[in-house]
Amino acid sequence: MALDEARKAQLRGEVPVGAVLLDSNGQVVAADGNRTEELSDASAHAEMLVLRAAGRLRGSARLPDCEIVVTLEPCPMCAAAISAFRVGRVVFGAYDPKGGGIEHGPQLYRAPGSHFRPEVVGGVREGEAAGLLKAFFAELRR
Amino acid sequence: MALDEARKAQLRGEVPVGAVLLDSNGQVVAADGNRTEELSDASAHAEMLVLRAAGRLRGSARLPDCEIVVTLEPCPMCAAAISAFRVGRVVFGAYDPKGGGIEHGPQLYRAPGSHFRPEVVGGVREGEAAGLLKAFFAELRR
Repeated sequence: MALDEARKAQLRGEVPVGAVLLDSNGQVVAADGNRTEELSDASAHAEMLVLRAAGRLRGSARLPDCEIVVTLEPCPMCAAAISAFRVGRVVFGAYDPKGGGIEHGPQLYRAPGSHFRPEVVGGVREGEAAGLLKAFFAELRR
Repeated sequence: MALDEARKAQLRGEVPVGAVLLDSNGQVVAADGNRTEELSDASAHAEMLVLRAAGRLRGSARLPDCEIVVTLEPCPMCAAAISAFRVGRVVFGAYDPKGGGIEHGPQLYRAPGSHFRPEVVGGVREGEAAGLLKAFFAELRR
């Protein structure tokens, strides 16, 4: 589903990243893709959109029973937001050595001051997720 | 103005942090305070709200001519968002040794992988900004 959201983002002219937020029963709470161009909002990454949608739906800014699945390693902004929403688990596809904030860069959940550290599983269907991004950027450069 | 926004946030039952976004002529583009409780959105920090409002108003996710003034040192999420919006300058009031992401914690703009580093001025009217927060949390603990 997150890969589908990434493909839909690409059709909208956005960087192809998609995210899904699931509850503890595996039910989908929110699903979306990147909308930074559409919304003129540099913070409108897929993760931020599903977190905010879930908060609105639930009437709560805390989502401890939830898991977020995203096609790309979250950037520092999204990694920090996932922690602020107290999401219990993060599953991501492609690693992002340049822009990632969990396994790369500031490695936010490993920082001593980290208030809340979600469980992290990286590299799930990595090839497909990375492939979408590679094809998108190769096309941009043509 | 940012201090006034922080006081208004407190009257709404929110952590008293306020932010103003100014253009290069010093004109106010957006002003707001923390609304995490009201919006059930852990990402609804004052900085995120003014950045998103300005993006919508301008029809652009890039605000390089702008300056953000905020009463508290931005957290990692907001520090990363400020950089993603390419805001040229950050002025903040109180330092935040526990939760800050610019001068403390991951010190995001000093990281080797930082794509865009805004100019930073910290400690402006620090006493007033910190005083609001201290009074708020002292009241919560009563």
